[in-house]
Amino acid sequence: MWIQTEISMPPKARGFHLITDEIERQLPDMSAIAVGWAQIFIKHTSASLTLNENADPTVRGDLERHFNQYVPERAPYYQHDYEGDDDMPAHIKNCILGSSLMLPISKGRFNLGVWQGVYLCEHRNRAGGRQLVVTLNGEAM
Amino acid sequence: MWIQTEISMPPKARGFHLITDEIERQLPDMSAIAVGWAQIFIKHTSASLTLNENADPTVRGDLERHFNQYVPERAPYYQHDYEGDDDMPAHIKNCILGSSLMLPISKGRFNLGVWQGVYLCEHRNRAGGRQLVVTLNGEAM
Amino acid sequence: MWIQTEISMPPKARGFHLITDEIERQLPDMSAIAVGWAQIFIKHTSASLTLNENADPTVRGDLERHFNQYVPERAPYYQHDYEGDDDMPAHIKNCILGSSLMLPISKGRFNLGVWQGVYLCEHRNRAGGRQLVVTLNGEAM
Repeated sequence: MWIQTEISMPPKARGFHLITDEIERQLPDMSAIAVGWAQIFIKHTSASLTLNENADPTVRGDLERHFNQYVPERAPYYQHDYEGDDDMPAHIKNCILGSSLMLPISKGRFNLGVWQGVYLCEHRNRAGGRQLVVTLNGEAM
Repeated sequence: MWIQTEISMPPKARGFHLITDEIERQLPDMSAIAVGWAQIFIKHTSASLTLNENADPTVRGDLERHFNQYVPERAPYYQHDYEGDDDMPAHIKNCILGSSLMLPISKGRFNLGVWQGVYLCEHRNRAGGRQLVVTLNGEAM
Repeated sequence: MWIQTEISMPPKARGFHLITDEIERQLPDMSAIAVGWAQIFIKHTSASLTLNENADPTVRGDLERHFNQYVPERAPYYQHDYEGDDDMPAHIKNCILGSSLMLPISKGRFNLGVWQGVYLCEHRNRAGGRQLVVTLNGEAM
């Protein structure tokens, strides 16, 4: 049983955003899968997907501040600078954080830990919407 | 052919631990899969899974020291600090290293390189056990 | 429908290399898959796979320079140093960047963003060839 769909995410501010509910709402067919995987894949090189704490928003703020510190703008060794100071750091953050998540499905739902949530990490200052490819595969209930 | 199981890992000291054998021993059904994938997924936001060198233990020590240097405790920009100095660094390390591994299966075994092993990376000083979801999918032999 | 093959990549210079076309050319059977996944897995602990910008080569140069800055050679805390100054940094970069990519397949092709390409990241100064395991799974057209 294969299901594939593209989801358009509306533009988000630079930073780390919790999107678990937004994704699950768009995957009604997942309820038919007893055991399987859901892949969320972002079709961009300056925004990322990761998993982390779903409760305290200061975790998301600290992540944004940490990556800004260790992947700085205007590093003296950047040659790719004509799209703005936030562009090359965005590419590097994307390589570190990753472009896709593979989530186990059990009994029709993501099988995540109690504290885990899906983050969309927007690395650009003024990005447009972002396209996701979501692919589900599994055994029907 | 889908197989899904949850594995409880006993508590481990802070650091990088080789767990390939511990995982394989708990997956006797993998021997029936000719071609497929095994996913190991950790249901936590302060411990990670990664692959690296399976021979020299100094590699694991150097990884722990490197991540402690570049993801420091008590960074001045952390706001999420009430669960201890090791908490926010643990979340950041988890985002960098990742929460899951997807391993190719060939002829009933993980198809890894000769030097590759599965690491559980424990980022907290005094963590409890950790829960893994292991999902296998493939073509029967 | 499962397809698995091993691909030998010829030796590459240290740095980030765009290999999307090289991979696609070796996967003629992908054209038969309507919906699915392709996994590219590298069987080594000192070279990585990641996705990023497929157009401007300065992005690849900046990535190499950034990772050399933040994963330095001869860090005072390295104990694993007998294979050369580029060895331990190579292991760390591999943990950060990752050993595998899971790409969605749609209508017989990788379903990537317009600007996304597959990178092989060679972290050693004088590496030999690299072995990839490529596994395809999906629904036939």
